[in-house]
Amino acid sequence: MQRFINNPNEVVEDMLSGYVKAHHEVEYSSDNDKVIKLKQLQVGKVGLVSGGGSGHEPAFLGYIGKNMLDSVAIGEVFSSPPASAFLQAFKSANTGNGVACLYGNYAGDNMNVKMAIKMAHDIGIQVECVRATDDISSSCKDTIEKRHGIAGGLNMWKVAGAKAAQGASLKEVIKVAQKAVDQTRSICVGLSACTIPDVGHPNFEVKDNTFEFGIGHHGEAGLYVEPLCSAKEIASKMVKAINEDMKINKEEVSIIVSGLGATPIMELYILYDEIEKQLKDLEVNIYQVQVGNYVTSLDMNGVALTIMKLDQELKELLDYPASCSAFNNL
Amino acid sequence: MQRFINNPNEVVEDMLSGYVKAHHEVEYSSDNDKVIKLKQLQVGKVGLVSGGGSGHEPAFLGYIGKNMLDSVAIGEVFSSPPASAFLQAFKSANTGNGVACLYGNYAGDNMNVKMAIKMAHDIGIQVECVRATDDISSSCKDTIEKRHGIAGGLNMWKVAGAKAAQGASLKEVIKVAQKAVDQTRSICVGLSACTIPDVGHPNFEVKDNTFEFGIGHHGEAGLYVEPLCSAKEIASKMVKAINEDMKINKEEVSIIVSGLGATPIMELYILYDEIEKQLKDLEVNIYQVQVGNYVTSLDMNGVALTIMKLDQELKELLDYPASCSAFNNL
Repeated sequence: MQRFINNPNEVVEDMLSGYVKAHHEVEYSSDNDKVIKLKQLQVGKVGLVSGGGSGHEPAFLGYIGKNMLDSVAIGEVFSSPPASAFLQAFKSANTGNGVACLYGNYAGDNMNVKMAIKMAHDIGIQVECVRATDDISSSCKDTIEKRHGIAGGLNMWKVAGAKAAQGASLKEVIKVAQKAVDQTRSICVGLSACTIPDVGHPNFEVKDNTFEFGIGHHGEAGLYVEPLCSAKEIASKMVKAINEDMKINKEEVSIIVSGLGATPIMELYILYDEIEKQLKDLEVNIYQVQVGNYVTSLDMNGVALTIMKLDQELKELLDYPASCSAFNNL
Repeated sequence: MQRFINNPNEVVEDMLSGYVKAHHEVEYSSDNDKVIKLKQLQVGKVGLVSGGGSGHEPAFLGYIGKNMLDSVAIGEVFSSPPASAFLQAFKSANTGNGVACLYGNYAGDNMNVKMAIKMAHDIGIQVECVRATDDISSSCKDTIEKRHGIAGGLNMWKVAGAKAAQGASLKEVIKVAQKAVDQTRSICVGLSACTIPDVGHPNFEVKDNTFEFGIGHHGEAGLYVEPLCSAKEIASKMVKAINEDMKINKEEVSIIVSGLGATPIMELYILYDEIEKQLKDLEVNIYQVQVGNYVTSLDMNGVALTIMKLDQELKELLDYPASCSAFNNL
């Protein structure tokens, strides 16, 4: 295992220590060293919280910032944070007008968020949640509520962050976050596996000269494995899969092409070039594009394509200024 | 070779096509499809040009932007652009007050830039150049002028971009770019090799459980190979090597920790945590930190540490607003 680490069991602690030193706008929550919060909260604003397993950097902590998330609960690699961490994140983000907990739909996170919300209510903090369910390969169309959240979470944080910053109520923030989720679909392709540091070997395998279509962010088995083909063919399969799940032809959309950790940036642009051609054929109008490493899976070689169907409100909220370590549109 | 590409011989063309589609502030130069330029030049400003081989994305084209580079010449993977591309980049960036060509010191680039400058002078465009020579492992201290430029180029572009935006003359822009180079040192560590798409296999090897200290951005042999050690020990070796080359104790500095393409972002922060501790021991004052993938080498697993010693002028120029796809401090 070729890694820049110290004790494999302490990679999360070590990363958080480095992150807080590098980004002076955030700090540890005083009561829990696995909760990171924005130093200067906008008082009176609905608090925005996320959280989940580590290994997806810059998610989640890289999205703490101005008009974005206020605090996040940090789990071990690919593991949910405990309920106590989510509770502390709620406390850290709350300035009196309630908290929106916007996270990805995974069993462990669901359980811990549910418990944390109950505990928060007991101490008078109102929390509502929205779960990202953008990964179309993780469950069929009839059971969208079972789908996992992947890079699409970024859309939910961005539009809800803008809405909250504009002074919206908790109910309004939740509504627009849910709209972003409902209008967002993602699909992942994997070319090679990743290695969790305290496991020390890849937790699955993608054989050379094959690729896994619809792979999950933790290496969950995809829809199928096929011989490796061109970027053009992969892009075509990705766009087709999303269009079959949520009709996008003639729609206006935003696009995220996110590398999963070990994919050269050059190749993300090669893929985007082909994705754009496919979308043009569907007469899709591309309003906004982001190409980079937004939600990763350690050193996995792969890519996630995320498409959100837009209306006027979502466009305005995407355009609203925001700033965090993972992006900046000030 | 597990890659998202079409024809391995056309990865640069395909990437550029995707890049220009994704970033509407740039466009192809009308006379050369390997030159990318900012659409809205600041008229009267000294033009800023860079260029070099592809495979280092987001460098170089990701640094085209407001108060940064005006145009770049794009070479094949790890190969210099031809003189004609540099010349076209000069023409694209020139609005009448001369052009600063700020690039990394490699034999091919030196030859082509030299020819292009001659051709530019023949048609009345004044061009001066500065070569980044930050890689301390590429030549000894007595022959700094032979050293290669790596991630330290970013410092040169940032401060020269700010100086030019402030209305400085070509002479003043060149002077401050040279100051940034003189005050900047970098060192790379490699944990695994990268694969050039049209070669199809790694062009060198780093054996498992070893690391290569002082590796070059194209896999140039480093200073030594040793058994892999902890992030703490690697950070210590990196800081020590830089401090031996350019005394930084009790100085004020900026830091870039740049992944080389396949290194998990988590590990960049783990390394930074240790680098910060080492610098603290040297009573170094860290003025600015950037952690991310700033100058990569395709899918190489490795990291570059770049340190620039600051004075008041460099601090002000670093802080000056700038915006490009690879970073934004507006």
